[in-house]
Amino acid sequence: MNVDGTPFRTIWRSDDGWSVEIIDQTKLPHAFETLRLCDVGDAARAIREMEVRGAPLIGATAAYGVALAMREDASDTHLQTCYETLLATRPTAVNLRWALDNMRAYLLPIAAPDREAAAYARAVEINDEDVEINRGIGKHGVEIIRALSEAKGGGRVNILTHCNAGWLATVDRGTATSPIYEAHDRGMDVHVWVDETRPRNQGASLTAWELGRHGVPHTVIVDNAGGHLMQHGQVDVCITGTDRTTGTGDVCNKIGTYLKALAAHDNGVPFYVALPSPTIDWTLSDGVAEIPIEQRDGVEVSEMTGRTNGGNIETVRIVPDGSPVANYAFDVTPRRLVTGLITERGVAPASADGLAALFPERVLKKGSA
Amino acid sequence: MNVDGTPFRTIWRSDDGWSVEIIDQTKLPHAFETLRLCDVGDAARAIREMEVRGAPLIGATAAYGVALAMREDASDTHLQTCYETLLATRPTAVNLRWALDNMRAYLLPIAAPDREAAAYARAVEINDEDVEINRGIGKHGVEIIRALSEAKGGGRVNILTHCNAGWLATVDRGTATSPIYEAHDRGMDVHVWVDETRPRNQGASLTAWELGRHGVPHTVIVDNAGGHLMQHGQVDVCITGTDRTTGTGDVCNKIGTYLKALAAHDNGVPFYVALPSPTIDWTLSDGVAEIPIEQRDGVEVSEMTGRTNGGNIETVRIVPDGSPVANYAFDVTPRRLVTGLITERGVAPASADGLAALFPERVLKKGSA
Repeated sequence: MNVDGTPFRTIWRSDDGWSVEIIDQTKLPHAFETLRLCDVGDAARAIREMEVRGAPLIGATAAYGVALAMREDASDTHLQTCYETLLATRPTAVNLRWALDNMRAYLLPIAAPDREAAAYARAVEINDEDVEINRGIGKHGVEIIRALSEAKGGGRVNILTHCNAGWLATVDRGTATSPIYEAHDRGMDVHVWVDETRPRNQGASLTAWELGRHGVPHTVIVDNAGGHLMQHGQVDVCITGTDRTTGTGDVCNKIGTYLKALAAHDNGVPFYVALPSPTIDWTLSDGVAEIPIEQRDGVEVSEMTGRTNGGNIETVRIVPDGSPVANYAFDVTPRRLVTGLITERGVAPASADGLAALFPERVLKKGSA
Repeated sequence: MNVDGTPFRTIWRSDDGWSVEIIDQTKLPHAFETLRLCDVGDAARAIREMEVRGAPLIGATAAYGVALAMREDASDTHLQTCYETLLATRPTAVNLRWALDNMRAYLLPIAAPDREAAAYARAVEINDEDVEINRGIGKHGVEIIRALSEAKGGGRVNILTHCNAGWLATVDRGTATSPIYEAHDRGMDVHVWVDETRPRNQGASLTAWELGRHGVPHTVIVDNAGGHLMQHGQVDVCITGTDRTTGTGDVCNKIGTYLKALAAHDNGVPFYVALPSPTIDWTLSDGVAEIPIEQRDGVEVSEMTGRTNGGNIETVRIVPDGSPVANYAFDVTPRRLVTGLITERGVAPASADGLAALFPERVLKKGSA
């Protein structure tokens, strides 16, 4: 997407043809800085220190990390070493493992002297595939926005989103944001209510930043505000992302998504979830019962980081000393509250049948799970 | 309630018999400091600068402010001047106006030389009446907690609350917290999930602080987390306060209350609202349609104040420069989502009939609104 008029991906090959550049997301939203990754150590640090984050972008960065490693030493031993180095950066990230498995399987049969070129080529493909999936989500999702706009006689469509399922979490365009960027770029009048998304504030710090840089009208609100807005007709549609989707259409996404889905249902506001199909876990059927919810460090709740008046980045404590804190990272929104799932192949009802109709080749045969 | 073992109200007469002391709530939760109010100017500053806050406590402070004014000059002119000075501090606070009207009407017929003593006596009454109302709420509300505990075979009762309808918002005991303190003081095993309550964080900074000082087990969570907890049986009951209640049982409370009521309803968790009966507005019947929602300064959303590692109080910006912000202060929870209203006279169903049965003398006659 654009940063004040100039197109950027979140990761790209430098003009030198071999090093890799990224946007340093630890500096957002207060500074826009890029970093150059010159070896696999740089790539590992970028993932570990969350200079890049978001499942698709982590995978894309790991793929380039393998290419950087092959440039140094294309031996089988080094291929295995870089695989392990990169995997250890965020061991629970499914996309990270997928990208590394894919790169290793692709490169192992290739003779060492040809591996560097092959690794760059495959990394570029993995990056481009992510963008294509997101373009597909945008192409199908924009029709929802168009229909809402037409129902309002061409008026502004107000979209509520939660967390950052945006350009910054992917290589380009994002998932939940892809239909929004598509609508905006086609000249439709859209406005986004951006949930700040406590405790890590990815909405306020990342989604608001990227929408602002691309020029999409938006307003930041606290997570508490969406219900009131829906009661008063100020939200036409909700679109969120998902970290994990059951084969039956339950959605596990950033904590608080469920509360917005309840408010949407109570007020007749359509609630859509955008997802690349690889996030569907076909082995799961009951999200609330089956998906374990990660508990993260309480300092994310008890402390807040921002920019002081003097321009410094500072962390402040906001909870009394001695008060315990709990920090659940995700919640599950049952499919009965989800209007539809926006995938790269089209919009599916949030149900086993709905997903199976779009992805018939992926449905698990009975007994195979 | 107790502060680490020593009983405190939020406002009290000093040992000198005439000056008034308060807890400086602007220092919470990072420091416990008291302030001495020696004249009406001190009282006005305390209200204006939010050294005291919460509707009942503001009224109680204003009453003492009039007493301090009468000590200086008990003339009709000064009575009117101090009325206007105090009213101007928070012009939209209903309790402030009520307390000032009450004090003025009480004092005007009294001869000037007797006004100082009369003013202190009436201020003490207004303070004690608040405590008595809250004790009544506690006495009736504790039966709800007792029944839930018995249904669990005497096990721990987990209570979720939002914002600060606590001791610190009143003279003592609080409204939503009164049944909780009552249960705790009677030896029942209670634990409170404290919503941080963005944007002003009254839950994390005030409710967690007062529960901690009194020794009530509690855990601070982000506002996004309550739905997940309810899905997993970790909340037995919700109890919140209310700023304004319609005669039909709709509840206008801090933004985000509605989302918790939806989650409670979706998971079969009882949702109670505690209120002193003066907050019932008998002229209103449809809260969502009729109650205007205040929009406050966006800096409450875009900035956050806390304590740095070095011990300083610092404010940091958490929203990108240039991103607009909206800040709705309250939302309305429709009566269909409210299990019951805990008042000083008992627990009423959230309905016109339910409230009328408890407060028959206050119901407006048809055509009188």
